[in-house]
Amino acid sequence: MNDLRLAPRHLEFMREAIALARANAAAGGRPFGAVLVRDGQVVARAVNRILETHDPTAHAELLAIRVAAQALGTTRLDGCTIYASGHPCPMCLAAMHLCGVAAAYYAYSNEDGEPFGLSTAAVYAQMALPPERQRLPLTRLLPDGEAGLYAEWASRG
Amino acid sequence: MNDLRLAPRHLEFMREAIALARANAAAGGRPFGAVLVRDGQVVARAVNRILETHDPTAHAELLAIRVAAQALGTTRLDGCTIYASGHPCPMCLAAMHLCGVAAAYYAYSNEDGEPFGLSTAAVYAQMALPPERQRLPLTRLLPDGEAGLYAEWASRG
Repeated sequence: MNDLRLAPRHLEFMREAIALARANAAAGGRPFGAVLVRDGQVVARAVNRILETHDPTAHAELLAIRVAAQALGTTRLDGCTIYASGHPCPMCLAAMHLCGVAAAYYAYSNEDGEPFGLSTAAVYAQMALPPERQRLPLTRLLPDGEAGLYAEWASRG
Repeated sequence: MNDLRLAPRHLEFMREAIALARANAAAGGRPFGAVLVRDGQVVARAVNRILETHDPTAHAELLAIRVAAQALGTTRLDGCTIYASGHPCPMCLAAMHLCGVAAAYYAYSNEDGEPFGLSTAAVYAQMALPPERQRLPLTRLLPDGEAGLYAEWASRG
């Protein structure tokens, strides 16, 4: 942590993520921003756009991943770093894992967000439960006769 | 499980999700489809669009949520059910939690997908580790002078 605090680029990128969050809040949006960096260069900037799009997945980090991947023309963001103004929710953290993001930093914690309804700690708690104990039951339902979908796909090369 | 197998609508919706997956595979895409249902009506259908969009978040379930929320003009999908051809990844499962999806069903398991590189069990395993032991380090970095972002946002009403 001390090393990170002394790294000017880390702080520069984080300050930019926070500035994006603050500007989004000033414009009537939710106070979240994110910056995605590859090889020391910002390749995507995004803010939470849930309110204007009605899209509940329009979190800043998820949008930064989408923007970066589409700008770079690749589904892989290996080696990239995300600077997020707020603690990433499990959807965004999983998205980072899926596309190979190497590291992530956040400024405001879930504890900071809790009094304002801006924490996703409860979702983390749900995800940490065994599937059968989560509030959202996830159940297997395999219709009779179904078996070969993935093998069919793989056989197409 | 037996009750579910006897419920014709459950099977009908799941068969539609699988048909979407199969059609997407036939068109060169990945073999995943999802159907989002509210009050017994399909409000969104989606397939995995990663290959054509380069967007690593373009999973069928996430796109179904986006389509449904935008079609219904709401960020909340409380009471909705998702039928997914494959076991939802943690990004999609977290998205369901975030917007209030009530239940989810899947046909093909991560075990089915493992031989074909279509399992996300490894991402679940990462997410189950304490943050400091995950492959993707998630680190707090709060610049000096930062403290009031969320309170500023809340004070705007």
